[in-house]
Amino acid sequence: MATVEELKLRVRELENELIKCKQKQSAVEDAHSLALNRPKIEKMSAEVVDSNPYSRLMALKRMGIVDDYEKIRTFSVAVVGVGGVGSVTAEMLTRCGIGKLLLFDYDKVELANMNRLFFQPHQAGLSKVEAAEHTLRNINPDVAFEIHNYNITTMENFTHFMDRISHGGMEEGKPVDLVLSCVDNFEARMAINTACNELGQTWMESGVSENAVSGHIQLIIPGETACFACAPPLVVAANIDEKTLKREGVCAASLPTTMGVVAGLLVQNVLKYLLKFGTVSYYLGYNAMQDFFPSMTMKANPQCNDRHCRTQQGEYKKKEAERPKVEIVQEEEEVVHEDNDWEIELVAEETDAELEAASGTVPDLPEGITVAYTIPAQDNTSGETVEETEQSLEDLMAQMKKL
Amino acid sequence: MATVEELKLRVRELENELIKCKQKQSAVEDAHSLALNRPKIEKMSAEVVDSNPYSRLMALKRMGIVDDYEKIRTFSVAVVGVGGVGSVTAEMLTRCGIGKLLLFDYDKVELANMNRLFFQPHQAGLSKVEAAEHTLRNINPDVAFEIHNYNITTMENFTHFMDRISHGGMEEGKPVDLVLSCVDNFEARMAINTACNELGQTWMESGVSENAVSGHIQLIIPGETACFACAPPLVVAANIDEKTLKREGVCAASLPTTMGVVAGLLVQNVLKYLLKFGTVSYYLGYNAMQDFFPSMTMKANPQCNDRHCRTQQGEYKKKEAERPKVEIVQEEEEVVHEDNDWEIELVAEETDAELEAASGTVPDLPEGITVAYTIPAQDNTSGETVEETEQSLEDLMAQMKKL
Repeated sequence: MATVEELKLRVRELENELIKCKQKQSAVEDAHSLALNRPKIEKMSAEVVDSNPYSRLMALKRMGIVDDYEKIRTFSVAVVGVGGVGSVTAEMLTRCGIGKLLLFDYDKVELANMNRLFFQPHQAGLSKVEAAEHTLRNINPDVAFEIHNYNITTMENFTHFMDRISHGGMEEGKPVDLVLSCVDNFEARMAINTACNELGQTWMESGVSENAVSGHIQLIIPGETACFACAPPLVVAANIDEKTLKREGVCAASLPTTMGVVAGLLVQNVLKYLLKFGTVSYYLGYNAMQDFFPSMTMKANPQCNDRHCRTQQGEYKKKEAERPKVEIVQEEEEVVHEDNDWEIELVAEETDAELEAASGTVPDLPEGITVAYTIPAQDNTSGETVEETEQSLEDLMAQMKKL
Repeated sequence: MATVEELKLRVRELENELIKCKQKQSAVEDAHSLALNRPKIEKMSAEVVDSNPYSRLMALKRMGIVDDYEKIRTFSVAVVGVGGVGSVTAEMLTRCGIGKLLLFDYDKVELANMNRLFFQPHQAGLSKVEAAEHTLRNINPDVAFEIHNYNITTMENFTHFMDRISHGGMEEGKPVDLVLSCVDNFEARMAINTACNELGQTWMESGVSENAVSGHIQLIIPGETACFACAPPLVVAANIDEKTLKREGVCAASLPTTMGVVAGLLVQNVLKYLLKFGTVSYYLGYNAMQDFFPSMTMKANPQCNDRHCRTQQGEYKKKEAERPKVEIVQEEEEVVHEDNDWEIELVAEETDAELEAASGTVPDLPEGITVAYTIPAQDNTSGETVEETEQSLEDLMAQMKKL
């Protein structure tokens, strides 16, 4: 049996060990809480001190680029798809100090996503929206986040998605300022398109090709510019969901470079649109093989299959007609690229039903851009699919003229 | 005095508390070590499973883009400057599975850097290279890292920098495969230029303007293309160190978008150069206001102030002359941009000494690019500085012809 002395010694030992354990624990927790918390900032300051996370952004005013940078805090943006492009898009907007972000995605983080920016290996298995919110809140606690871990294309979720787009603004009940499509499949793009046409919601599309070396961004103002159903997609290559690809043992290639560039061009366009500086691009492509950046504008298609698009077109025309004539309508500058020695290859892998759904007139393409397919039919229910992707623009235009 | 029973009770209490504390600690440590460790991967696999971090990169082979993606593991790249562009550059290369990265920077992470990608608020106060290594190792433990927390422009550090460039390859003792300049000041660029000219080391330059809305990348092959001393910098605006700016209460603007795009274009060029696909760009500019991307090539200047550049030019000429004539010399495709309705404004804020150091002949500029200054002097010690930045190309060319 233990003596009093032995027991006292044991108590002293245990007490010391416990102190050490608690010290270590609190050090770990301190580091953790330090990581999580910088205090929220009430008002953006332009003060040039190391501790001001907004000094370099507020400097855009002094540089004569942006008139009112603080206005960024009044905007709410929805990002649909938080993958290779969407996650970087959300991070850029968070670091810029956007007012509110709504994130939509139903996928989980996988190690197979580690070849793109943003997610880290320890997040594997977490839902993308939860993992993203955690990281982003950490980076900038001034941003408000709203996350939705679901697939927007199912009936019930689509209704909820529509509701959040039209009520999830900075002031609850008001619509968001912009919807960004960063999804990787045709159905989700069509769902966003349908929702935005019905709501008259301006949105931006983005996409990266399956071979990882081209991408694009596109601004869609319902009634004014071509919607996703007005014209066939251009630089978006295969419209196969990544999941489908995985099941077949095939997977699309992707690169952090291409996705980073596309996200950068997208958010730059968002900033220009929201903060009113520079020229907002309607369509900007990126061909990484040749470092070629085609740009263009596409008007809405009066024969568009989406009836809400046609309604918006009518309303846009009415508004345009009512505009005082003295106003100078600014013409978009179009960059003409003489070089024609490159080729964006597109592989149409849609089903016939998808082809029909996305049919429309061939837009006025700059040289070098080809479309994956075209169904310029008077009759909406039938059309010709052009599966030959290497068909030249001349061939397509000649075909168009024949109709 | 405590009784044996009381002491026994106390021992039991303490033992239980200690167990709890240790359990909690090990849970925290587990989470931490899980975050830190995915096992190293011996051989890149193309297998399409969620757990394979390289599946989407290896898919570049099946897509016909890259012949031998695994070769990426044999390359060593030095990144000088781990700020807004350099940190994202390092992250992209890490996620792509580069063999080795050498990082050089002397700065600390500040909250004022949070408007750019990569660093997080909890890293404020840490040295940029240490914070970057920690994050990057976490993202991809297969990459070898070597970090140097110093300013390369001081005499002693410069010698060490030269030594690591020429011996820090994948196989110690061999040179690195590429040096990337992601610095924010003139002196550091000149130091890299001097080192690479002396060593005949191929490198790539990058830069973002002080107003945050333009940037560029440039490939420099000593003796073959213009070095940094051959021609004045083009889209790099003010060459003032950020520290200097801060001291004066002024700071340059910066955006995560522009820096992300420049890093993406830079690393894409690195991948194309190392893995031999697509067309490697010699000079690629990015004007965010107009989404304009000028590209061009610049030949080395026979009157370059850097004697090592002139030596490399001689060696290049000898090698070219020795080449069998049957070989077809591939001409770089040059994209001609008809659009001329934009302007890249450059503000020359160098000292006269810097101007002289960087003087050279005016390169053959595509329409729309203007230089900040030009000193096309026969006599190296005197020259004319053109501080008017809005001077047209025509004026500059006319001036050139007069000489």
